[in-house]
Amino acid sequence: MNLGILGGGQLARMLALAAYPLGIRTICIDPNPQACAQEVTRVVTADFTDQVALQNFINSVDVVTYETENIPLACANEVAQYRPLYPSADILNIAQDRLHEKIFFNSLQIPTPAFAEINSEKELENAVSSIGFPCVLKTRRLGYDGKGQMILKKTADITPAWQSLQNSPLILESFVPFEYEVSLIAVRNQEGEIRFYPLVLNHHTQGILRYSEAPLNASLLQEKAENYLRLILEKLNYIGVLAVEFFYDGQQLLANEMAPRVHNSGHWTIEGAQTSQFENHLRAIFNLPLGGVQPIGQSFMLNCIGEMPPLASINLPGTHYHIYGKKPQPERKLGHITLVDLNSKDFNEKKTALLKHLS
Amino acid sequence: MNLGILGGGQLARMLALAAYPLGIRTICIDPNPQACAQEVTRVVTADFTDQVALQNFINSVDVVTYETENIPLACANEVAQYRPLYPSADILNIAQDRLHEKIFFNSLQIPTPAFAEINSEKELENAVSSIGFPCVLKTRRLGYDGKGQMILKKTADITPAWQSLQNSPLILESFVPFEYEVSLIAVRNQEGEIRFYPLVLNHHTQGILRYSEAPLNASLLQEKAENYLRLILEKLNYIGVLAVEFFYDGQQLLANEMAPRVHNSGHWTIEGAQTSQFENHLRAIFNLPLGGVQPIGQSFMLNCIGEMPPLASINLPGTHYHIYGKKPQPERKLGHITLVDLNSKDFNEKKTALLKHLS
Repeated sequence: MNLGILGGGQLARMLALAAYPLGIRTICIDPNPQACAQEVTRVVTADFTDQVALQNFINSVDVVTYETENIPLACANEVAQYRPLYPSADILNIAQDRLHEKIFFNSLQIPTPAFAEINSEKELENAVSSIGFPCVLKTRRLGYDGKGQMILKKTADITPAWQSLQNSPLILESFVPFEYEVSLIAVRNQEGEIRFYPLVLNHHTQGILRYSEAPLNASLLQEKAENYLRLILEKLNYIGVLAVEFFYDGQQLLANEMAPRVHNSGHWTIEGAQTSQFENHLRAIFNLPLGGVQPIGQSFMLNCIGEMPPLASINLPGTHYHIYGKKPQPERKLGHITLVDLNSKDFNEKKTALLKHLS
Repeated sequence: MNLGILGGGQLARMLALAAYPLGIRTICIDPNPQACAQEVTRVVTADFTDQVALQNFINSVDVVTYETENIPLACANEVAQYRPLYPSADILNIAQDRLHEKIFFNSLQIPTPAFAEINSEKELENAVSSIGFPCVLKTRRLGYDGKGQMILKKTADITPAWQSLQNSPLILESFVPFEYEVSLIAVRNQEGEIRFYPLVLNHHTQGILRYSEAPLNASLLQEKAENYLRLILEKLNYIGVLAVEFFYDGQQLLANEMAPRVHNSGHWTIEGAQTSQFENHLRAIFNLPLGGVQPIGQSFMLNCIGEMPPLASINLPGTHYHIYGKKPQPERKLGHITLVDLNSKDFNEKKTALLKHLS
């Protein structure tokens, strides 16, 4: 079984490592000649629009998936003509665009923050008066890790925000004064079998996930979130892992965005759950029986951003170190460290010790 | 950090997969052009006695280890001249030879089955009369998975056994009517920090490990076995993972053999313990803090010999599939499947379901 992966970053790298024991060989395609998956599997360096490279890539694999939603839709459609592509190109089309995504959520009665499509400064002014301050102007596409966003707190912020982002299609969203952010990761295979990991509590700063904790033991929220994801999965005939991020404002869950792929907030599942999100994504797209998703203890995952603490400095028996083999650079995710605590007696102390490495 | 591995079979493969997240790159050397680690890492195809290949291999790595004790001692000594070799060549010298091994065990007051060195048919006859039937004639070196062994049950068996094995140095051992076989896996780093995994219950047929279960909850035996391994580790200033197999005859543990490396009976630790034996071996030889060895539930590992059940046929949520990428062949270990049970309610049913795949 040969799996093609569009993208060759850390998610592809972790997919490849999960694939070997299952007898699945992976090949990635990525325009970046330093794509970090190449340390562990074959990565073709080519633009996603390079027809010849893409065709060779397609010919060498049985099934294709992607590790980022920022794949040109034309590339996804091309791939889907020749090989099963999971999740499908239609889903990519929704998930690539914050506006499509929110319209889609609302069409399923999944609550979201208030939002409006913005195509002119005038539309922005009108949307601001209906949504109110604070609000966030975002590019509809290609935004990630807080890039392409500006918070508007007062009237004087409107024009500078417009001027800064006007070259892209935009969306204005209400800024939710949330109590916390959570994500739910689900997996669905071709038989329609669905499994939900427990809710993950996420902590972002400057739009980048810094750390996560799971399980969040909140059974009512878990049930609510599972119902929302089930609607999405079934509506889209979704195959693979899906992550949806929510704000919780103290009263309800508001869907913020969805990622049609393995997700940073699910990295703790490598050691902290019965089956990792990476393995379950592979099982889903090859239509294999899904693995269990039960947590094996309390997990805490720290993203290492801009700098990776040396392995020798992490002396906590239940921690797991994951370096991605990327060149250090400010704001770049270089790895993550997961603490899995089996008896929860000194979990908070260990968490505090790990948080000292927060970059 | 670059690690050289002497041997490129499944143990090297699993070491390489455990090495990537730690930022350790591996290179193997193996005479077999089909060595299965090459699917996941670089394997130099060369004989261990090929001086040029060996020197290039040495030059490309920082530390060296081995995945089999059947490495020519000259090769290990050559490596050790240029790079740290863990465990050391001295240890290899003991572990390569069943006679050296048993003499060494006894020198530390670790009980073993009765044994005698055999260099002639006459010596065999004398040894049989002192040890008694049943007994086992074994080659001292290069025996594994039941190869190079003959059981003697009566006087008429002596001459045929001698004729069949006389071309190798031999040892005669008492055949222990054991209640069960167990193994203890320990890890020690350069600081002298030691951790012991829980005892594993092993089931062999025709000299090949078929399945294992851990933990064996037997605290007195655990303590006894830990004391024995501590003696060995400290006597040898041992660095890395060590496995010792014991017979338990209902009264005491009798050391059968030791493996100075990661061991088949420790494969369950990949998912069934806080840290796998592979990661802890790497941590030990790079002098990193050792990972925890706590079991996360009850584990059962089935070796897949001669034939690998298809992944799609294993529909048990807590199971983990490990195919090694080897060409199927009778008696060949092609992979293993581990069941990790978190709540132990239906463990026996699941075990029974898995045992249907026993080859």
